Amino acid sequence: MQQIERIGVSLDSNLLSMFDKLIAKQGYQNRSEAIRDLIRQQLSTERLNHPKTKAIAAVFLIYDHHLTKLMQKLTDLQHSHLLQTISSMHIHIDEHDCLEVIVLRGRVTEINKMAENILSLKGVKLGRVNLIPA
Amino acid sequence: MQQIERIGVSLDSNLLSMFDKLIAKQGYQNRSEAIRDLIRQQLSTERLNHPKTKAIAAVFLIYDHHLTKLMQKLTDLQHSHLLQTISSMHIHIDEHDCLEVIVLRGRVTEINKMAENILSLKGVKLGRVNLIPA
Amino acid sequence: MQQIERIGVSLDSNLLSMFDKLIAKQGYQNRSEAIRDLIRQQLSTERLNHPKTKAIAAVFLIYDHHLTKLMQKLTDLQHSHLLQTISSMHIHIDEHDCLEVIVLRGRVTEINKMAENILSLKGVKLGRVNLIPA
Amino acid sequence: MQQIERIGVSLDSNLLSMFDKLIAKQGYQNRSEAIRDLIRQQLSTERLNHPKTKAIAAVFLIYDHHLTKLMQKLTDLQHSHLLQTISSMHIHIDEHDCLEVIVLRGRVTEINKMAENILSLKGVKLGRVNLIPA
Repeated sequence: MQQIERIGVSLDSNLLSMFDKLIAKQGYQNRSEAIRDLIRQQLSTERLNHPKTKAIAAVFLIYDHHLTKLMQKLTDLQHSHLLQTISSMHIHIDEHDCLEVIVLRGRVTEINKMAENILSLKGVKLGRVNLIPA
Repeated sequence: MQQIERIGVSLDSNLLSMFDKLIAKQGYQNRSEAIRDLIRQQLSTERLNHPKTKAIAAVFLIYDHHLTKLMQKLTDLQHSHLLQTISSMHIHIDEHDCLEVIVLRGRVTEINKMAENILSLKGVKLGRVNLIPA
Repeated sequence: MQQIERIGVSLDSNLLSMFDKLIAKQGYQNRSEAIRDLIRQQLSTERLNHPKTKAIAAVFLIYDHHLTKLMQKLTDLQHSHLLQTISSMHIHIDEHDCLEVIVLRGRVTEINKMAENILSLKGVKLGRVNLIPA
Repeated sequence: MQQIERIGVSLDSNLLSMFDKLIAKQGYQNRSEAIRDLIRQQLSTERLNHPKTKAIAAVFLIYDHHLTKLMQKLTDLQHSHLLQTISSMHIHIDEHDCLEVIVLRGRVTEINKMAENILSLKGVKLGRVNLIPA
């Protein structure tokens, strides 16, 4: 079980007052939660800078579903032996375009390589990859 | 039906050669597709700068599913009258943490406001929001 | 004179230990300084989201100094009545290219508009704009 | 001397029309210049992902000049044997704060390490680093 520690932080009253206003607007109930989120965000960014970090990725892409070869290539890419696809979700946006969200696990460098390969496929119009350290 | 146009682009041979190498590595089959992707990416970024742009968002978050109140609050936020949740996907990562991907439609400013509210909930450890203009 | 306040932050020992390792690597002498920097960074990002925020910008650009009209246009842009150029620095990189750093004050929206105008000039090869709330 | 090549790009009329509107607003005189800038930007981003790429950096920081030890430490860091400081510019913002812009050359990994060291110094309030491949 995790142990909770308590640390002290000193800061000038002007900075504290601006921070309190910001986190109230964002919806935080208390400062500890807001500061924990800043710390987690910073650690996450740092870990993702290392190409070998194991991560979970959500690949988010818009494509034209009339291109049937594309769907086959997307499926092939998801069965790469270096990555493990956990789940995917397919949403019809309009008569041309679909949104696909693919959640997978792997190392940062392999995920980025696969994302490049997906985004370069003909018919994929836009894409983004979000990574979170595993 | 869309009409296809053909434009000419002049650039120095050194820049062209570096571009050809990069797009080959990324997996592009031809320059037109790579340049179309650069243009779409640029237009997308530009449109998302306007707070009233209608967008589709994938909210991607890691949270502790032992906090049962959190799941209720997440559901409430998704039923805001300003946003339309299209679909969501829930993935168990380990004994503590879940990954949830929520796809929704709305204006940029409303999506960002909801994202702040979600990220500030106690139990939500990390989150990202990806937007694509609708 | 600024008054210093001291607040308490509770977090689990695992998160604290990872944070301590990260900030030691970055060179911080103590946690308060590292947490103050996270807070300042967050406040800065938030304030720059508002187009009317007054900011100081460093426009950083690489251009070909053989294009003499360019230098005249750059100077003209710096004399816009909506922005106040504080200082600029010019560095010769090689036989073709110069780096220019222009520091100026203005509202976020005006700075971004001027930056677009500079980056679109023929001869300007690459550019970045850094903003800090004034 | 550089040779100019001319390539053809096909794209649908709707995408082309949105691109033409955007680049007119940004101030571009023609499409070739706008597309060259997109390509240069993409190549620059790609090259900066490699830690050994040689780059030119502008380190941009706000600090409290009452902390005299800080100025000494900043100077020491600029004389690291792994980096070559080209020039720096110092601007008084108000009674407390200075803006310093330091332009230097080095490898991406060394520049980022030095930037972390600078940003973690007591008295440095905010900082940004901009890199351009050399």
